Amino acid sequence: MAANTRLATAVQVLGVLAYRGDAGATAEIVSRSLRTNPVVVRRLLKSMQGHGLVDIRPGKSGGVQLRRSPDAITLDQIYRAVEPQTGVFALRPASNPLCPVDRHLKTRLPAIFDDSERALLQTLAQTTLASLMDTLRLETVG
Amino acid sequence: MAANTRLATAVQVLGVLAYRGDAGATAEIVSRSLRTNPVVVRRLLKSMQGHGLVDIRPGKSGGVQLRRSPDAITLDQIYRAVEPQTGVFALRPASNPLCPVDRHLKTRLPAIFDDSERALLQTLAQTTLASLMDTLRLETVG
Repeated sequence: MAANTRLATAVQVLGVLAYRGDAGATAEIVSRSLRTNPVVVRRLLKSMQGHGLVDIRPGKSGGVQLRRSPDAITLDQIYRAVEPQTGVFALRPASNPLCPVDRHLKTRLPAIFDDSERALLQTLAQTTLASLMDTLRLETVG
Repeated sequence: MAANTRLATAVQVLGVLAYRGDAGATAEIVSRSLRTNPVVVRRLLKSMQGHGLVDIRPGKSGGVQLRRSPDAITLDQIYRAVEPQTGVFALRPASNPLCPVDRHLKTRLPAIFDDSERALLQTLAQTTLASLMDTLRLETVG
């Protein structure tokens, strides 16, 4: 499959917000870090707002900030916020009811795919945005 | 990301080979189960041949068969055979050396992505092609 850079992008969006802290940020500021179009950033921010990760204040004096502390944001939450429901693996959309192998796998594969998705999420849950940024803060201070 | 149906497709290709057993199969027979183009099947078979999962005999009396027993084939082996090297997650191709957050994340994210990929593979390694097909064999006999 095409390697998925969506999680890396979303982590960097939140990383910039964490880095700027009280200085605040806008989609434009974040998009400069990413060297991408602010539209891409706004779309991700909207998904993450829907999942309670950021607050967006619209209007001229608006901006965006983390809704909670970086040590209360884990990578699995970011993944869930920006990925569709479908997961890493999916069944083939086409099916062939005449083939016993096709029928059989359609009943067996979903549980296996769910298990591997769960393992992936559990690993991501071990890292917080704060722990990911930690060295950076030290560098900045030092 | 787009849900990845490649693993499900590859598993079904091998599932058909396991199901047919000594009767043997061709890319055309497999493609009927999948209701897909034989070209798609041949491409997957070639990747899986390169990873030692199947033997392809070319020519008029040719065909394809599993290289080893279905209980010696695990789902992580199938995943590795048909997926590119890049893994589930990847860094963004663009980078911004002027941004400290961008520089920092490029050093930290790869290890985290590797860990989650490893967790995914460990889960897939727990299922063999034989265990996946087992009920089907019983159904067929019963």
